[in-house]
Amino acid sequence: MRRGAMGLPVVGMVGGGQLSRMTHQAAISLGLSLRVLADATHDSAALVANGVVVGSHESLDDLRAFAEGCEVVTFDHEHVPGPLIEALEQEHRVFPSSAALRHAQDKLVMRERLSALGAPVPPFTPVASRADVEGFGRHVGWPLVLKAASGGYDGKGVWVVADLDEADEVLRSGVRLLAEEKVPLRRELAAVVARSPYGQAAAWPVVETVQSDGICVEVVAPAPDLDEDRALEAQDLALRLADALDVVGVLAVELFDLGDRLVVNELAMRPHNSAHWTIEGSRTSQFEQHVRAVLDYPLGETRTTAPWVVMANLLGGEGDPDLDRRMHLLMGRDPGLKVHLYGKEVRPGRKIGHVTALGDDLDDVRRRAQVGAHWLRTGEWL
Amino acid sequence: MRRGAMGLPVVGMVGGGQLSRMTHQAAISLGLSLRVLADATHDSAALVANGVVVGSHESLDDLRAFAEGCEVVTFDHEHVPGPLIEALEQEHRVFPSSAALRHAQDKLVMRERLSALGAPVPPFTPVASRADVEGFGRHVGWPLVLKAASGGYDGKGVWVVADLDEADEVLRSGVRLLAEEKVPLRRELAAVVARSPYGQAAAWPVVETVQSDGICVEVVAPAPDLDEDRALEAQDLALRLADALDVVGVLAVELFDLGDRLVVNELAMRPHNSAHWTIEGSRTSQFEQHVRAVLDYPLGETRTTAPWVVMANLLGGEGDPDLDRRMHLLMGRDPGLKVHLYGKEVRPGRKIGHVTALGDDLDDVRRRAQVGAHWLRTGEWL
Repeated sequence: MRRGAMGLPVVGMVGGGQLSRMTHQAAISLGLSLRVLADATHDSAALVANGVVVGSHESLDDLRAFAEGCEVVTFDHEHVPGPLIEALEQEHRVFPSSAALRHAQDKLVMRERLSALGAPVPPFTPVASRADVEGFGRHVGWPLVLKAASGGYDGKGVWVVADLDEADEVLRSGVRLLAEEKVPLRRELAAVVARSPYGQAAAWPVVETVQSDGICVEVVAPAPDLDEDRALEAQDLALRLADALDVVGVLAVELFDLGDRLVVNELAMRPHNSAHWTIEGSRTSQFEQHVRAVLDYPLGETRTTAPWVVMANLLGGEGDPDLDRRMHLLMGRDPGLKVHLYGKEVRPGRKIGHVTALGDDLDDVRRRAQVGAHWLRTGEWL
Repeated sequence: MRRGAMGLPVVGMVGGGQLSRMTHQAAISLGLSLRVLADATHDSAALVANGVVVGSHESLDDLRAFAEGCEVVTFDHEHVPGPLIEALEQEHRVFPSSAALRHAQDKLVMRERLSALGAPVPPFTPVASRADVEGFGRHVGWPLVLKAASGGYDGKGVWVVADLDEADEVLRSGVRLLAEEKVPLRRELAAVVARSPYGQAAAWPVVETVQSDGICVEVVAPAPDLDEDRALEAQDLALRLADALDVVGVLAVELFDLGDRLVVNELAMRPHNSAHWTIEGSRTSQFEQHVRAVLDYPLGETRTTAPWVVMANLLGGEGDPDLDRRMHLLMGRDPGLKVHLYGKEVRPGRKIGHVTALGDDLDDVRRRAQVGAHWLRTGEWL
């Protein structure tokens, strides 16, 4: 049974995090109820969806049983091992495919493929030994960046090393590495698009993403002071990569803005933090778009709903946040701020929600988002 | 246990229809998961929410057991008998209260109270006998309108009778009736507001509602060609009624526009069909606002997101609609149209969803909404 209410298809999402939670919200409008494979019943999406299956995304049996009830299976993270996805897609429709998803799971595979496609990337090299790092350092200079080829996220798995001694420490961890030039970045951008199996694609405006300790803390849409040609170049690049890699669903291309040119930092093939602003800020949110894409429905309009949209991530703070009280006071202070809480246990530094402000004046909008996120985190007004 | 994830309050909604479904969607953003008391597991909201309790809204035991887990209980319909709500509110926080809700449950109580408050209503009289109708007919002329005092909806329970013979037929049904003058209405409007226990209130723009066979088929926001003073008068009336009746949550005041003045038709104290357009058309949807109101959170900004917003109801048509195919084709034709399907079994004339179009040109926006709803219902392009 792969059809649900009203004869509409059942979409399964592996992973019960906030991306699944917000995709479920969007899917409801389309007459769907997302089926979710969650690790636990207290997962963010499991708290709010009806069709929750508890199981492991690392078990082929669990994945198979889950997929049985679905018209199509998609993901809220990149952690399902490639061989399991390959096995699953022998029997089920799975988007993005294992072949596409490799480029979001393995940074070395991604770098090599993008280089082959002529896409701009920082100078890089696979690292098998100390000698590799030493040679690369002579070539691009120090400090340089070492990255775990797989498994990193939110700044984890990335090390800026000043010299060979520091590199040694990372090498001793035994993880598979690549080395990259530490490019002189002016800021970070993201070009987010969606693509359907039919090949239709749609792009949102390019945004600026602000990181702190490797975690995205703020997204400004559209990216301020971005030359129109440069913005089009970024969108074009994301659309071409989506096509070349045969991505189905949302593709986020994280970019370094080097001032005179852009280079690709990372790829994500799922709804992405850099496009949470689309929930209120675009006629079609990335979550609705992802569902439309994996169902091969025509994609929705990506027009924005305000001149400026700023999203600030809400990270867990210290102590009991008494969020009920903080929500009260924040809503009183800023009735136009849109708050999203993920139902997750509050731990310091953990992404537990986000806020979105929209309006005509960038400084004002930005300030409102920052004030809201800071207040919810700390109980103090900025 | 009345607190859920993140220490946030649990909101319970009695009734598992589409209002509950869309309220659940909105509640998720606030970190909540709506607890729903549904008649059956295939109810519209029960298909998409996690905390579903199956039980009867006419059983005090079921209501009590349901309320036990909730910080506050609210409703997606008016069908819970008043005495049960009175019993429930001895032990639990219930919004709107039984005292307020009576005015949405009993048209005669409403008419008498509104008259006493000096609010504009059509001439009316309680009907206990044939002689009452006869006397009232002499007074206001024929045809006149007979209404069931309670239990009517979507045109049910309303009879336009041409003479005493036709009135006799209705009288024989034995339902408790009131009679009203058949006022010469130019069109119907709705003023929708929300109010919190603290007494804060917020209004959306006044809309025009278009009925066909007593069912709302289209809502245009804001109401076209409505004099600004008249619009303010309608909003002011709705805000005053919300206050006078101590309404908590959304209050929809359905109005007859008689050209030279407005009179109140009906009241609803819950999210209402005439404000579905707020999901995309206002910074705060009526569903989010209802949740904020019953939790006594400060209310959200009601600013609109486009000059014109038109919602068209999707009514079930004949035969198998093959909604999956129709959704495909509709999304291809109008990528900006927002479709909402309720997961309900398709039956002719039943409200199974709605579509919303937004834009700068009223004719275009209206046409898009009509084309979309007609296509999904019939499989034919208007």
